[in-house]
Order: sequence, then structure tokens, then C-alpha cells
Amino acid sequence: MSGNTIGKVFQLTTFGESHSPAIGGIIEGCPAGLFLDYNFVRKELDRRKPGYFGSTPRKETDEFEFLSGIENGSTTGAPIKFIIKNLEYKPSDYQDISGVFRPSHADYTYFLKYGKTEAGGGRASGRETVARVVGGAVAKLLLQKPGIEIRGDIETIGGEPYDPVKTAGLVQVALNSGDTLGGTVTCRISGVPAGLGEPVFDKLQADLAKAMLSIGSAKAFEYGIGFEAASMKGSAYNDQMTVKDGKIIFLTNHDGGIQGGISNGQEIYFRVGFKPVPSVKLPQSSVNQEGEQVEIRISGRHDTCHVPRLVVVVEAMAALVLADHLLRNA
Amino acid sequence: MSGNTIGKVFQLTTFGESHSPAIGGIIEGCPAGLFLDYNFVRKELDRRKPGYFGSTPRKETDEFEFLSGIENGSTTGAPIKFIIKNLEYKPSDYQDISGVFRPSHADYTYFLKYGKTEAGGGRASGRETVARVVGGAVAKLLLQKPGIEIRGDIETIGGEPYDPVKTAGLVQVALNSGDTLGGTVTCRISGVPAGLGEPVFDKLQADLAKAMLSIGSAKAFEYGIGFEAASMKGSAYNDQMTVKDGKIIFLTNHDGGIQGGISNGQEIYFRVGFKPVPSVKLPQSSVNQEGEQVEIRISGRHDTCHVPRLVVVVEAMAALVLADHLLRNA
Amino acid sequence: MSGNTIGKVFQLTTFGESHSPAIGGIIEGCPAGLFLDYNFVRKELDRRKPGYFGSTPRKETDEFEFLSGIENGSTTGAPIKFIIKNLEYKPSDYQDISGVFRPSHADYTYFLKYGKTEAGGGRASGRETVARVVGGAVAKLLLQKPGIEIRGDIETIGGEPYDPVKTAGLVQVALNSGDTLGGTVTCRISGVPAGLGEPVFDKLQADLAKAMLSIGSAKAFEYGIGFEAASMKGSAYNDQMTVKDGKIIFLTNHDGGIQGGISNGQEIYFRVGFKPVPSVKLPQSSVNQEGEQVEIRISGRHDTCHVPRLVVVVEAMAALVLADHLLRNA
Amino acid sequence: MSGNTIGKVFQLTTFGESHSPAIGGIIEGCPAGLFLDYNFVRKELDRRKPGYFGSTPRKETDEFEFLSGIENGSTTGAPIKFIIKNLEYKPSDYQDISGVFRPSHADYTYFLKYGKTEAGGGRASGRETVARVVGGAVAKLLLQKPGIEIRGDIETIGGEPYDPVKTAGLVQVALNSGDTLGGTVTCRISGVPAGLGEPVFDKLQADLAKAMLSIGSAKAFEYGIGFEAASMKGSAYNDQMTVKDGKIIFLTNHDGGIQGGISNGQEIYFRVGFKPVPSVKLPQSSVNQEGEQVEIRISGRHDTCHVPRLVVVVEAMAALVLADHLLRNA
Repeated sequence: MSGNTIGKVFQLTTFGESHSPAIGGIIEGCPAGLFLDYNFVRKELDRRKPGYFGSTPRKETDEFEFLSGIENGSTTGAPIKFIIKNLEYKPSDYQDISGVFRPSHADYTYFLKYGKTEAGGGRASGRETVARVVGGAVAKLLLQKPGIEIRGDIETIGGEPYDPVKTAGLVQVALNSGDTLGGTVTCRISGVPAGLGEPVFDKLQADLAKAMLSIGSAKAFEYGIGFEAASMKGSAYNDQMTVKDGKIIFLTNHDGGIQGGISNGQEIYFRVGFKPVPSVKLPQSSVNQEGEQVEIRISGRHDTCHVPRLVVVVEAMAALVLADHLLRNA
Repeated sequence: MSGNTIGKVFQLTTFGESHSPAIGGIIEGCPAGLFLDYNFVRKELDRRKPGYFGSTPRKETDEFEFLSGIENGSTTGAPIKFIIKNLEYKPSDYQDISGVFRPSHADYTYFLKYGKTEAGGGRASGRETVARVVGGAVAKLLLQKPGIEIRGDIETIGGEPYDPVKTAGLVQVALNSGDTLGGTVTCRISGVPAGLGEPVFDKLQADLAKAMLSIGSAKAFEYGIGFEAASMKGSAYNDQMTVKDGKIIFLTNHDGGIQGGISNGQEIYFRVGFKPVPSVKLPQSSVNQEGEQVEIRISGRHDTCHVPRLVVVVEAMAALVLADHLLRNA
Repeated sequence: MSGNTIGKVFQLTTFGESHSPAIGGIIEGCPAGLFLDYNFVRKELDRRKPGYFGSTPRKETDEFEFLSGIENGSTTGAPIKFIIKNLEYKPSDYQDISGVFRPSHADYTYFLKYGKTEAGGGRASGRETVARVVGGAVAKLLLQKPGIEIRGDIETIGGEPYDPVKTAGLVQVALNSGDTLGGTVTCRISGVPAGLGEPVFDKLQADLAKAMLSIGSAKAFEYGIGFEAASMKGSAYNDQMTVKDGKIIFLTNHDGGIQGGISNGQEIYFRVGFKPVPSVKLPQSSVNQEGEQVEIRISGRHDTCHVPRLVVVVEAMAALVLADHLLRNA
Repeated sequence: MSGNTIGKVFQLTTFGESHSPAIGGIIEGCPAGLFLDYNFVRKELDRRKPGYFGSTPRKETDEFEFLSGIENGSTTGAPIKFIIKNLEYKPSDYQDISGVFRPSHADYTYFLKYGKTEAGGGRASGRETVARVVGGAVAKLLLQKPGIEIRGDIETIGGEPYDPVKTAGLVQVALNSGDTLGGTVTCRISGVPAGLGEPVFDKLQADLAKAMLSIGSAKAFEYGIGFEAASMKGSAYNDQMTVKDGKIIFLTNHDGGIQGGISNGQEIYFRVGFKPVPSVKLPQSSVNQEGEQVEIRISGRHDTCHVPRLVVVVEAMAALVLADHLLRNA
């Protein structure tokens, strides 16, 4: 019941901690005969790698290996197991803070639940998302056939509309002052056939919301025009329909491509808000495992802003949800 | 795989359509020995009933009956089945629009997925939430023991901060013009012990997000300070800790009581945004099942603003999630 | 986690105890458009009713009602909920033994697990099988389309090959002496397409075995030639194949229609062994809830031999398993 | 829905085919703090290795590695992933029969379901049981705390009561004639606390039956006195109780330690029947993928009798079921 699996038909189970020899997962329910393009998986993992402005100087070489479920380059229908070796882990990145709960990290809650902190090497690590990216890459390959495309974009960083040049400056300023930044990511999914999603608890937007909020630093999710809808009148909000060239079309897409929990064929779009990286170099008040108040400064190699690396994670989680509902609907 | 069940240990399955003789559910996983206070269930159902300003003039008498799992007033540990009779259904409320897809309703997507519209009597009906309220009431009774309290409040209606008097005016204006309103609801959960939630996919906020977005007209969810976090610096955002009177306390609660997917003992709070009721009396452009463009005016007895009735539904869904995680952690 | 649901795609959840106002269930995953022949359900229930030789003189009128998931006589794809009222329950049938653990009943284990005995009205009651029969009837209707037929037969009663006349005598002798009988039931399933079943844990025979052993008094299950296979040489056992009139045929069917967990198109057949009804009128040594040794004689209206009534239950459980795998394979 | 997972709280998922680089599994739900004795796992794997009389001359070196979920030798509560490398696979063991369906193997059903035969390297391979043995070893370590012990024994081979010396002769005769043998295995579980098992579908015996029938060549399962019960009168069958030295005891154990689906504290015992190894060297009639009748003689290194190697697999599956119910009951 520890919730390491997502999906009901196309399922990803992840395993591994930042300090274990490997991280990985098992994909179950992937149909046989899907060509598993390793270059594509490689490229997806590269999008998550450090190297972006503001990311950690740690070099993470994500060497992945598929251990089962593939024959002659294609899936067999059996469980697909993959691992990614942990090559670059350095305990020294974490040692000096051992015993102190890093503010807004999972240290304190892990300590209360498991008797040890996340800093000691746990599941909360952003490193676990590497398995999500591999699972998402397989899901994306599956979604290519029916023509479903998923595209995530950085929308804002540090409260400013994203602009590569300006943003680099913003990140540099934060880095210099030992601080960190959050941001928002949008995601647009085109080519979704009508009919995906279930009418009661497994509405398509409900499963997307869960998938997004399961990403470590996500704080908010809205689809269609989201919170703005709450201020609108029904007559202005409703997506009216008409007929054009013999085809049914919508005059607007405030609903974000989902009605009654089920896709309507329009573009699905949503936004996710991420809090800033909690590992700041500035001094913070905290408490240690002995219950004493202490000052903590988090050194080590950490992201100043992780939002650029999260774009592919958002896409991966969306792909997992879509692949699951596509097969549930098959 | 049609997703009629929510929860992994404390589970609610709902059944019934607006036009079937009864709506109801089965609660599984409720421990034995819980006194099932029928008056409380009654009161919770009354909070969802029409009668609030802006609600439908339909009289919905929710006569519920527990058919199993209870002996001498207390739960036995066996499945708890309940039904609520559909006493007040009038097909005439729906007939004139039969065959036309009501804009931003589930009619069009249901028609594509199931070959018939929601207007013909389906699961998307707001009526299904009555079973959620009963399930949530049982969950709340279970949560009383460890002292967990859930309180939902209307935050805004039609974009205005909620004020009973002003809002009634706002609703009257919308009603007069044949229009409808949406709004936002906040929810605060106190008394949650530290340690609830799972570290990977079943993070507490992820399950809350799914539960909230599974409510028909919900468009957005944020917990803690939500989207605002995306604009903050880490040093300002982080919930620093200190020791006061020998007890660990937090200086802020931007995280909303959950860190790393696990409750930290602080108050959990979140916000949900609801779109306006889609049934507006004003003329709208739409399409019928034959694919012809038509004008539609939705008469019948519908809510002008359903947000006041959704408060208890938000609480019920939160209670179901908390009860499930409480038992998963037991 | 109390295991009230069977199946992964076509799922039956049962609820209700012998003493609750109603017994029933929810069927999920049944496709839309299946004509639900009430007469057939009625007939299946009648096959389980007392009235056979050796059965209890209690009159059980199984009035069933479908509360949801059906429109104009056919399934809608939504959950199908049904109830069967408990009309004929008489506490007096159970009172005199209250507080004493009936030997080989569930009384003792229920008392240890739940703090009260099955005699006090629990889930172990044979009465719960009425919900299985309704669920199985729906499954059978679903299986009719692809031409799958399930036929159970009494094989032996009290150790003797079944013969209606002789057996009636055997039962009369047991009844006169205050004793009870068990027996074996065979089941043959024809028309099963090749390919049903999964290769690892959900082998078709594994799911059948679980379904059969979940029937209260079942003690044994074997499929194909079963235990006898353990004494055979491979060369004699193996189901060799040949070609006849251009079609692949098997020379034998020792495997019972399943190989590697997957149906091969031959007839599936298996046997189930049932212990005698534990409620004997003869004096037995037992213990009461105070831990004192007592003599118990179980009066009341009980079956002398329940095997004839179990035939339709065996078929129902087989139908549930087949329907589930048929849809999993769809 | 491909059924690669067993258990609801303590769960084992296996992956890998005989021809994939590795075989392995993920254990979820194992509590933190269990010392994972590698020597014990090693010894359990050795019990499954060839080397027994009648086993294949293939040398299978089962080098296992735990990749996650363990820290300082103990479980962390996170998923435990393990792999076993496939070191000794030789395609030449299978080549000559490629394209022909081996009688009573999974070749034909796999071909119909997946479009390729098991001989081409599939999940049905006995090799998959290596992952079950590792999972079972972890389960056994967990069961040691409450004092649960599981002991499997060969009961018969080729229809003869097991005797090491006589049996070796029997196997030699079969080997010389190119034939194979099956047998029966008994299993006794002591130290089981009363109260394990659920009352409806997840009866303890039902889950044991499924686990046993999920082993490739199992054809039959009976618990307690099994099929023999069907011939007994209730008065002779019932496990009467009395009080001795102030303790409740049973006079017999025909029920095999389980009543109403729930353990009663007595020894649990059951029997499993296995068909002979299907790979016989004697000529057999079969059919190839082109639908032509052919004669097949299966050479290669195969077991003459696999029953001795299955004892640890039976124990492993029993341990998985008991561990799951122990935690479900916790």
C-alpha cells in the first residue's frame, strides 16, 4: 500500500533511492510489438539532466538498461524492467547537514514516519524522477501511433514570464545570493481522441492532477482556464459549439479538452506550479533530530532552479496517464 | 476499470444514475466498532440539499438506508452498503433539450464514449455526489477518534469574496439574467497526525488533488500557498523551524502541512476552483446528435450557483482521502 | 483489504450478512448493451433454493432487484447494483447454540478475529452465495455471445457415484441419524476460445482454483486429470496433437483445456470436493465462549446435504472467472 | 492486467524471461527493519538448483543482487528490487524443436495468444520460479518473528511413496527410456496465529490454492483431508473441541487449520499434485506453426523429474500468501 505504482492498465512501478546502486522501474501492460526506440529514451533522459542554466553542477550520467520485456528491439507484452545506475552519487554532498531537518524538505516527515531522514537516502529524492522519465518515454512511443503529442513549456520562473536570456540573469542573481527559484510549467496535449477518461473518480483531469501533484515540488494544478473559471459567468465560460464545413467545432476551449471527465477531442491543456528548490545556501532556522534549534546552511551541489529539468517530468507523467486511459478505453 | 472506487484501504464505490431507482455506495475497509451516528449522516446530507440561495427549487429528499455492515448501530467490519432513493426525479426537467449537446456539459463526450448523452440519465449527474457525502460522513466519524477535523468554506462566488448578503444579491442578478456563477472553496484540516501519505505516487497532496478534481465542475487545485509559491524565493518560501517551550514548531506553513508527500502535523489547507453551472437559460449555440447547428436555451429547475452545496462535497472527498491514509498508516 | 471483491476487469463485490436486511452486490466492468434476462437470473437463483432432497425445510424466497446500471432491460456500462431481500430469516434457528462454537464452523475463528461468532450473523453464511449466483448469472449472459457454456454436475454424494434414486435414500439415512453428507461436483466449460489466462500468477487454473476454494465448504480442486497426473509418465500424460481434416486436434485432454495458464480451445474441466455440512444433530464435544467444554446438538432447519445446491454456485464462480479473463483479453 | 503481481499488502512482482539478460522481481510492502539474511536467500536458491537426482545437467548459477530497499543489511520499507543474472542459457538447448509445438507445453497457447511460442523464450519457463524463491525467502524471514514455519516434503514420485533410494531407481528407469515423472508435495505450516484470512473471496485456502496452481505444472490442490472429506459423514469429519489443561484443543484437524477461511491456530497442511515434465525424449505426435503434423523428440538438457526442485517453490508461494495475510491482519 506504499503507492509505488501508477496506472491501472499501463502501469509504472518505480524503485530505488538516491543512494541505492540503481534506480529503475517495471512497466506492465505495455502491448506487444511496440518498437522501443532507445535513442528517444536517451534524448528524454538528457532533457532531465543537469546542464541547463541554474542546474546542479553534478554530472548525472543516466545509463539505462532494459532487462526484460523486449526482443529484437520491440516489446513482447511481458513486464518491461529497466534500471539506471547511480554513478555519480557522493555522500559528501549530504554529510554536513546530517541530523538536521532541512526546511521544507521531506527530512522531518520522513523522520517521523520512518525513523530516518530523506537526507539519509530516501525515495523523496528528485533522482526518482529519472525512472518516471523512462516510463514516460515508453508511454510517449505508445501514444505516437494514434498521433497524441505532449508538449511541456516553461511558463514563468521566479514570477517572471519565461525568456531564456532574462531568466538566465534572474537565476544568476539568485545563485549569487545563495537563494533558489520556482516556476510554472504549461502542458499541451494534441491529437487526443474523444472518449478517454472515466465518469466518476477516474476522470481524466483527476488522474492528471494526481500525476502532477505526485511530482515532488508541485503545489498547484489547473486545467483549461482553471481558477479563472471561478470568476466567470456560465454564459461567458461555456464552450459553445457550431458546425463548420460539416464538422462539429467548439468556439472556445475553456474546458481544456475534457468534459464530464472525458476528452472531447480538443487540445488538453493544464498548468502546474512548482515551489522553489528548498536547498538554499542562506542561513535558516531549523531543528535537529535531538530536538534542538540550530542554524543550517545547505552547501553541496544543488539546483538553483529545477523548473527547466521538470518539463520532461511533467510530460512523462502526462504520457503515463494518457497511455493508461488509452488502453483502458481500448 | 471504470473507476467507480476511490481509496485503497478505506474504499468507497458509488453506483446509480440520476434516473435509476436509487443511488448509493459500498464502503469497504471501515474498521469494526465505529458508532454510526445517523443524525450526523442526515445533517451532512442536508448541507448538500437545495435550499441555499441560488440553488435549484427542486426538493431533494435524501432518504438513506444502510443495508449491511452495521449491527446495533455500530460497524461490523463487513462492507457497508447504503442506498438513497431517487424520490424527486422529473424527466420533464430534461426533455426539451433531449438530442442537443448542452455546452460544457458531459453530453457530447458521453455521446461519443457511450452512444448516449448524460441528459439521458448518466453518471455525470451532480446527484452522484449524494453518495460521496454519505461515504464522507462515515469517514468523518472515523476521523473523529484521532481528532481530525475538516472544515470547508466558500471563499469567493462570481469572483467576489464571499459575504452572505452581498453574494445573495450577486446570485439574484445572475438568476434574473438567466446566467450562472462559479466560485472557490477553501478547506482546512486540523488534528492530522504526522506521517500520513506515501513518498512516491500516493503523496497525500496527490490523492487530495485527484479527489477534488473528481468533483464534476472543479477546474483547479492548490495546496499550501499554491501557485504563489512559484513566484517566491526559496529563502522566503521555506517553512523554517524552531523550538518553543520544548516543542518543535514551524515559523510558517507555506507547505500546507505536507512535506515530501507526508503530513507534518501542521494544518493542511487547500483551495478548489469551480466553474459556473453550465445550465444557463440564455441562448447558446450548440449542435444536436444529427450534427446540425442549433440554438439551445436550458430551462428546467437548475442551480444558479452550486458552490454552497459543494462545500460538504469537498469535505467529504477530503475525509475519504484522510481516512484511507490513516488506515494505510495503521 | 477484506477481500469482498473478485475479478480485475469484470468484478463482483458482495455485501450483506445472513441477518442484515438485504444481501447483494455490485458488478463492475460489465460492458454496455448486454440484455439482462431477468427470467434467467430467476432460474439460476431457483437452482440454489432449498427444495432438493436433503436441503433445509427453510423457504428462501430470493426476491432480487437491480438498482442501477440497467436501462430498458440492458446494461449501460455503469456499475450494476442488485439486492436480494432477507425475507425468511428466523433468529430462533440459531439461538439455542449461541455462545458455543459449532465444530468445523467459522464460529471459533470469527470469534478470535472479530470478537463475535458467525452464529451471531456473519459473512460466512451460505446465504452470501446468493449474491454470487446473481453475479454469475450476469457473467453467464455475457459468455453466451462468444458461445461459452458452463455445466456443473454432481459427481458423488457421501462417497457414492451420484444417482438420483440411490442418493435420496443415502440422504434419508443420514437425516434419520442426525448426520450430514458431502460430495464432489464436476464442471465442464465448452466453447472457450484459445488465449484466455495470463502466464504468471493469474493463470486461468489459478483463478479457477481460488474461485472454487472461496466457496465455504470446498476442500479440494483439481483440473484436467488432476492428482492422477502425478502418477503418470510424461509420454502417457502429454496431450499429443495431430491434424485432421486440415484442423489441429489433440489426441487427449489430460491438461483440461489449459496449458501454460492459457486456454487452448479444448474443453476445460475440473472437480471440486466439498466437506459435509457441519451442522449435525448428533451430540458433539465443543467449547463455549467462556472456554468451558460443553456438549452441543445443533437443531434448527439445516441442509443434510448441500451439494446439489452448490452446483449452480460452482458454475457461477467459474462464469465470473471466465468473464473476467474474456474481458482482460479483449 | 497481465497478472505479474501476487499479494495485496506484501506483494511480489516478477519479471524476466528465460532468454532475457536477467530475471527478478520487486517486493513491495515489506516492513522496515527486517534483517535480510543473504545466506538464507542463497540456501533457498540452492534448494531449487539442479543437482538433485533426475534434474537437468544444466548448471544454473543463481547470482542474485538486491538493488534497492535495503540499507545496512536491513529493509527500509521501500520497494525491494532484486535481479538474478541468466548466466547459463544456451539457445542450442531449444533450437532443434523451434517451430514445433511441444505437447503439453505452453508453446501452442502462447503462439495463439502472443504469436510466438514459449520455446522462443517466454514467461512460462520454469526459470521464472527463481524469482518466486527469492521473494519467498524474504517472506520466510518476515514470518520467523511470529514463529511461523513452513515445511514442504516430497510425498510421492511417479505414483510411489517417496523414498530416496527407491526413487532414484525409478528416475533412472524413466531417464533411460527417455521418459519423465511427476509427483506430489505436501506442505505443513506451524505457528500460524489464529485470525489470518478473510471471510469471503480471500479465504486463506483460496489464496493458497491460487498460489499453488500458479506453479507451472501443478494440477491439483487439497487442504486438510481434502477430497476424502467428500466421502465422510459430518459427525466423523467435524473437528470437535475440548478443554485440556485449561486450553482449548481440537480432537482432530480435518479442516487443516482453516475454518471459514480463517486460520484457527492448528497446523495448516495441504497437498499439491504435479504432472510429469512435458519434455520427453520419446517420439510424440505434434504440429508445427505451419499447421503440419510432425513427429517430435525433445533432446536437450531437461529434468527427468522436477518435483524435488519444486518443494522450495511450494514453500515460497505459501510464505508469500502467509506474509500477505499476516500484514493484512496487522
